[in-house]
Amino acid sequence: MLENVLGWIDDNLPASLDRLFTLLRIESISTDPAKAGACRQAADWLAGELTGIGFDASSRATPGHPIVVGHHAGGAPHVLFYAHYDVQPVDPLELWTHPPFVPEVITASDGRKQIAARGASDDKGQLMTFLEAARAWQAVAGKLPARVTMLLEGEEESGSTNLRPFLEAHRGELAADAAFICDTGMWSADRPAITTSLRGLVGEEVIITAASRDLHSGMYGSAARNPIHVLATILADLHDDDGRVTIPGFYDGVGTVPPAVKRQWDELDFDAAEFLGDVGLSVRAGERGRSVLEQTWSRPTAEVNGIVGGYIQPGFKTVIPSKASAKVSFRLVGEQNPKAVSAAFRKFVADRLPPDCKVEFISHGGSPAQRLPIDGKWIPRTASALAAEWGQEPVLMGSGGSIPVAGDFKSVLGLDSVMVGFALDDDRIHSPNEKYELASYHKGIRSWARILAALAE
Amino acid sequence: MLENVLGWIDDNLPASLDRLFTLLRIESISTDPAKAGACRQAADWLAGELTGIGFDASSRATPGHPIVVGHHAGGAPHVLFYAHYDVQPVDPLELWTHPPFVPEVITASDGRKQIAARGASDDKGQLMTFLEAARAWQAVAGKLPARVTMLLEGEEESGSTNLRPFLEAHRGELAADAAFICDTGMWSADRPAITTSLRGLVGEEVIITAASRDLHSGMYGSAARNPIHVLATILADLHDDDGRVTIPGFYDGVGTVPPAVKRQWDELDFDAAEFLGDVGLSVRAGERGRSVLEQTWSRPTAEVNGIVGGYIQPGFKTVIPSKASAKVSFRLVGEQNPKAVSAAFRKFVADRLPPDCKVEFISHGGSPAQRLPIDGKWIPRTASALAAEWGQEPVLMGSGGSIPVAGDFKSVLGLDSVMVGFALDDDRIHSPNEKYELASYHKGIRSWARILAALAE
Repeated sequence: MLENVLGWIDDNLPASLDRLFTLLRIESISTDPAKAGACRQAADWLAGELTGIGFDASSRATPGHPIVVGHHAGGAPHVLFYAHYDVQPVDPLELWTHPPFVPEVITASDGRKQIAARGASDDKGQLMTFLEAARAWQAVAGKLPARVTMLLEGEEESGSTNLRPFLEAHRGELAADAAFICDTGMWSADRPAITTSLRGLVGEEVIITAASRDLHSGMYGSAARNPIHVLATILADLHDDDGRVTIPGFYDGVGTVPPAVKRQWDELDFDAAEFLGDVGLSVRAGERGRSVLEQTWSRPTAEVNGIVGGYIQPGFKTVIPSKASAKVSFRLVGEQNPKAVSAAFRKFVADRLPPDCKVEFISHGGSPAQRLPIDGKWIPRTASALAAEWGQEPVLMGSGGSIPVAGDFKSVLGLDSVMVGFALDDDRIHSPNEKYELASYHKGIRSWARILAALAE
Repeated sequence: MLENVLGWIDDNLPASLDRLFTLLRIESISTDPAKAGACRQAADWLAGELTGIGFDASSRATPGHPIVVGHHAGGAPHVLFYAHYDVQPVDPLELWTHPPFVPEVITASDGRKQIAARGASDDKGQLMTFLEAARAWQAVAGKLPARVTMLLEGEEESGSTNLRPFLEAHRGELAADAAFICDTGMWSADRPAITTSLRGLVGEEVIITAASRDLHSGMYGSAARNPIHVLATILADLHDDDGRVTIPGFYDGVGTVPPAVKRQWDELDFDAAEFLGDVGLSVRAGERGRSVLEQTWSRPTAEVNGIVGGYIQPGFKTVIPSKASAKVSFRLVGEQNPKAVSAAFRKFVADRLPPDCKVEFISHGGSPAQRLPIDGKWIPRTASALAAEWGQEPVLMGSGGSIPVAGDFKSVLGLDSVMVGFALDDDRIHSPNEKYELASYHKGIRSWARILAALAE
């Protein structure tokens, strides 16, 4: 039966691609209030697609963007599948070589076919690999090999504010034996991966106000406090000369990587020079004496993701602004506590505030790091299905990114999460010219068809 | 005759105000390329007004915005009058309590009548004080007491790029005995002033690039160089803990204020607490051990006027941007050399650039500080005319602002400049809700009528 399903997937790839393109055309940028309608449209479309392949599905309203839930009957086990339909903003738009919401298949210089669009990789393409695998099983077998609940979120790129309350309110409906999350990457274009650890994330916005209005630098220059100087000085203080974060208590709970794990990482064919070289860099930044994999998989960070103050249009204006602000994120590992990191950062800023300055903070969410058990049945069965499709054993890897939902699944629903995805490092997620390999899409669908079969009891 | 001219001014104030309002309605923001048509419109309107009161006037094209020149016959001396018709941008627009280009006379809480609009004080209102004084003389006497050449610029707020070449190309046409510039302020609402020293200005934009594209902070965070961190660290380094600028050689040529001058400043009824308190501040920033007047009249500065990098829209985006940039201005005093300051700043930045970062600089102009002779006939005659109008001797003051044209008049045309203006510290120039006192406008017109009479030989 599996062979028939895989054959159906191959034969129906053009139609699968058309359906993904329909979803990619919807401008579901969750962080932009003007795109709320597009988010609703994406959720409605997905609920319709799920209904069409036998799910009891609907788009559920939340105080933010809708959450799509669908249930498909079937035998044991019962798996909860998660992905997100919202996407990152597209600025700077002028760096895109084609419109971000007009998807097309392009051919890279090395001949690879790629799906070019915002969200192609993160996460609409990944979401659709699972949905199309379910469609194939339904079409060929009239049922799915396992019982499946789908949970598709629309606020992953904007803090998932409403997800946890939704999980808490629907504990019974969302009960399952394990969760599968499709929002991660492959080890390489040829070798699949299962991600077993994730960094946590804390997002903080800091707004510093000095004078009650913008001032003329000729009249007030140097006598009046400049909030850009204050902000720059505080941000410059965040790291010491060795690249370590200087916030007191920041490293509490970080822990160390077990030597055996670190040895496995060192044995992987990871080319740090190529990783950096791909984005025009040659020298590793950050903490001294760490490898890139160690840094991005096992060390916490403090990064300024945005800064603005004063006159930023073309030309020049000799203004001393009233306000300056920055968005700062922290990636967490081990047992670092998001609330403690947020509080320590706010104290760090407040302690450095000169006279006449006020500070305001806006929280953009927080989630702890995750480490998932690699024993039990879930990961071995998933690994063998992936190995069958790709011809290589998957790498059990860490990830520098944060998928807070994995933590929520554990703490609210009591579920471990298996993270499988088909993105590549060069997919330019969150950047202009995002793409997803056509091979990731095609073999991703085939992979999920195999995993569903492997899970059946 | 002077009394008749002053009476005519009083009788015709409503019409004078209507003419100013016409000019204030034109959105001549010189730094905004989209407003080039408005700048041309303002220049054409001014040339028409000058022609109407007996000037041989025209709007002259430049590679940027036009320069208006008008000649009025008359006896000795021959004075060159300068003002500018361009204005600052209006952002942040949401802080304006009325539309910036819909002028109106409002009544302040203390009963003072004020002209509210962008450019009311800087510099359209000031420009029109002189033009209306000339109109009054022409209307009452059929001639002006002195020979007058008017020079009205449209790029003062955007670096005056084309002014100096224009002066060089029209040396003969612009020859005069002295220049009068109307772009400065009063000592207080009751006491006039003649500004005899001005700080110079250097404007620099610095753009730092790290990776070749925006990166996801989960994937690259801490391993990839963050240009916002680099920029913040460099800007934080610009000042030491005592508020001094740390750029090597920056203070070369600054000099010291003569004790006699400093004593005069200390005797002025300047209330530093009120000056700062008016804008919501209480503690003087900047160099230790200096008074506010000493700082703003006689000390150089380094101020960041704008900074931007990464994601600055509402919400959050965990991006490590490719670029971050800042606009930095330096106010110069004494013999500080603008070219040397620009070069020293660029070296300061380059010396702090970590591996993998590139820096690009954009110059936004440079001009040295000016100190004008207070002996000779110009300042005494002007001072007595001002004293007659206001009932108090004018203060001979320094200014923290920069009026590069005064330097160009000296170096290109060989002219000393007498700087008289009627702006007040609380006019909110360059800020939202700019205003000009109706009294400044009315008595400013009367003052120029008196000065023209006092100059006549």
